[in-house]
Amino acid sequence: MPDQFHGWVSHSPTTPLTFTTFTPKPFTPTDIEVQITHCGICGTDLHTLRSGWGPTDYPCVVGHEIIGIVTRIGSAVATAPSSSTTTPDSPLQLGDRVGIGAQTLSCLQPSCTACASGRENYCPRMIATYNSRYPDPADNNKKSRTGPKTYGGFARTWRGPASFVFKIPEAIPSAAAAPLLCAGVTVFSPLRKYGAGPGKTVAVVGIGGLGHLGILFAKALGCDRVIGISRTGRKKTDVIEKMGADGFVATEEKGWEKKWARTVDVMICTVDGDDMPLGKYLRLLKVEGTFVLVGAPETPLPRIRAWDLVAKGVVVTGSNVGSREDVRAMLKVAAEKGVVPWVEKRPMEEVNGALKDMELGRARFRRKGDGVPIQT
Amino acid sequence: MPDQFHGWVSHSPTTPLTFTTFTPKPFTPTDIEVQITHCGICGTDLHTLRSGWGPTDYPCVVGHEIIGIVTRIGSAVATAPSSSTTTPDSPLQLGDRVGIGAQTLSCLQPSCTACASGRENYCPRMIATYNSRYPDPADNNKKSRTGPKTYGGFARTWRGPASFVFKIPEAIPSAAAAPLLCAGVTVFSPLRKYGAGPGKTVAVVGIGGLGHLGILFAKALGCDRVIGISRTGRKKTDVIEKMGADGFVATEEKGWEKKWARTVDVMICTVDGDDMPLGKYLRLLKVEGTFVLVGAPETPLPRIRAWDLVAKGVVVTGSNVGSREDVRAMLKVAAEKGVVPWVEKRPMEEVNGALKDMELGRARFRRKGDGVPIQT
Repeated sequence: MPDQFHGWVSHSPTTPLTFTTFTPKPFTPTDIEVQITHCGICGTDLHTLRSGWGPTDYPCVVGHEIIGIVTRIGSAVATAPSSSTTTPDSPLQLGDRVGIGAQTLSCLQPSCTACASGRENYCPRMIATYNSRYPDPADNNKKSRTGPKTYGGFARTWRGPASFVFKIPEAIPSAAAAPLLCAGVTVFSPLRKYGAGPGKTVAVVGIGGLGHLGILFAKALGCDRVIGISRTGRKKTDVIEKMGADGFVATEEKGWEKKWARTVDVMICTVDGDDMPLGKYLRLLKVEGTFVLVGAPETPLPRIRAWDLVAKGVVVTGSNVGSREDVRAMLKVAAEKGVVPWVEKRPMEEVNGALKDMELGRARFRRKGDGVPIQT
Repeated sequence: MPDQFHGWVSHSPTTPLTFTTFTPKPFTPTDIEVQITHCGICGTDLHTLRSGWGPTDYPCVVGHEIIGIVTRIGSAVATAPSSSTTTPDSPLQLGDRVGIGAQTLSCLQPSCTACASGRENYCPRMIATYNSRYPDPADNNKKSRTGPKTYGGFARTWRGPASFVFKIPEAIPSAAAAPLLCAGVTVFSPLRKYGAGPGKTVAVVGIGGLGHLGILFAKALGCDRVIGISRTGRKKTDVIEKMGADGFVATEEKGWEKKWARTVDVMICTVDGDDMPLGKYLRLLKVEGTFVLVGAPETPLPRIRAWDLVAKGVVVTGSNVGSREDVRAMLKVAAEKGVVPWVEKRPMEEVNGALKDMELGRARFRRKGDGVPIQT
């Protein structure tokens, strides 16, 4: 008889979550178990619950901004393989407070250029924390549709590989740590990669769950100037006075693309929609500046004029969550600089109501595409 | 009475060039004069002659792949200002064989982030070799519509700033050197910037004047593997056997995007058109690979799916000609490695016929967007 966990399980795109039992992966020597205390709500949860990116493999337990306490450690965990260029965490202990993000495994093979260079988030065999399948031992451990399912954090217990579990620094409260595991690293990773720091100007498009963390991290990294970009002026006071941004652009006002032209080194775009003024965003970049799309809208981007790329050598790119090294670096910055996401705590039992509120855009600084932590 | 030069002058989008006189800029102490011996035809010439990118400032003399002999040197040339991070050429001498490319001046001010970092090709005040205007001394030297006009290489004589004139290494014949000044540096600059060399795979889309130079330079830089991409298989033998590429993709054949998926580090795209299979090109890139658009099509790019950028962190960017340091590095590589563009020599008197042939795609490995050298 396989183990049974309790959690808030989705059975179809149209029904609410049900608190019931589900069957986790078999426990292996490289796994750990975590008693979940907090889990954020991310836009991916909504996309997956409604089968928005393709048919979801129901039953499904979403949630990939997980915080909890280690309650069981597999015999091989201390010696679990890690990729060559990342710094392994110190060995996990029972009782440790840990986090799990959007990715639960990659191939971690030395022959994988992504894993071997510390970019596990781009491994072709990366496995998502829910709605995915672990490799099937009976099928040569290939990524398959027959291996055990992955289940996320809207549950009492999480079980999975220790390799993608992160110790949470003492300075970060659990409710604040949860959204860092997905939303936080999603904005932190490109900021780090593209050199956000002293001497640089960063702009963040969209002031939601991702965007407000983009502003907080850009400030924490010591950027000269951080600019929030939003459609309306509604969030200006929060962005400038409470998040500490140095500038604010409301794109419903005329002439902003001229006023701010050639001022930005790195722009993090957290919004989607085929009506975004992409050409105007690119005008804001300096020579060889970088526009990074995070998240994955369901519609294609607006068409880009070739000249908008050629004239200044600017870069349009995307970024997918972050590597393990990104997560560790982010947690360090958050702890040292006191980066605290704006969160709204709700008991886990209210998860259906919280999902509905987020769907309707009621979450403060969280909307479609972003996360709100929920406390059990 | 101002000086008069002789050249092939365009007076309207619809009439052929006329061999007649035109008035060059006044000679200043920072200028030189060159007796033109060769000039390539570039796609920009065609675009400009037909007012394809906006109304051309007729009368106009096109041609910006200029080779000639120095016949006059201004008194301030040896001490002409140069940007801090570029290596100045040794002082010019009368009788030197030199080249002039698509750019004839930039602001070269220490306060200009582009010029001060050796990226004069992205200076907001860059001045094109023709159909542009020099700063007006009477108007505080600002970029203006009142300064002297710039005139290109379809002429007997060229006059302009020495700062953007390059000595041609002895090893490179003049007819081969001409297309290097624009087409050559346009592909070389992004190859250099994005690390084309040992350990890397480079793909070149479009086997024309730019594309064939992309393949030759990628090979000369020591790339592990160089792949030519064309619509049909017509150019396969030339690309593999004569240019030395290691692979060839004909995009009219089915399944190429799967067969070559995740194999390419840097892709140089020399073609335009809104029907290009951009999403499939991006599939060919490795994790964090780079797609570089060179040249400036008149139509926007096809729409990009966000996931195509996010899933592998790939970069879509553009590149505009090259810096002076790029030109010098390119001429060095061309001389040392024997990079010889495939050219067709025509007497300058046949310029109208040569333009017509190029417009009709009759030039071998030259087509819309590319160049063919013409010998006087």
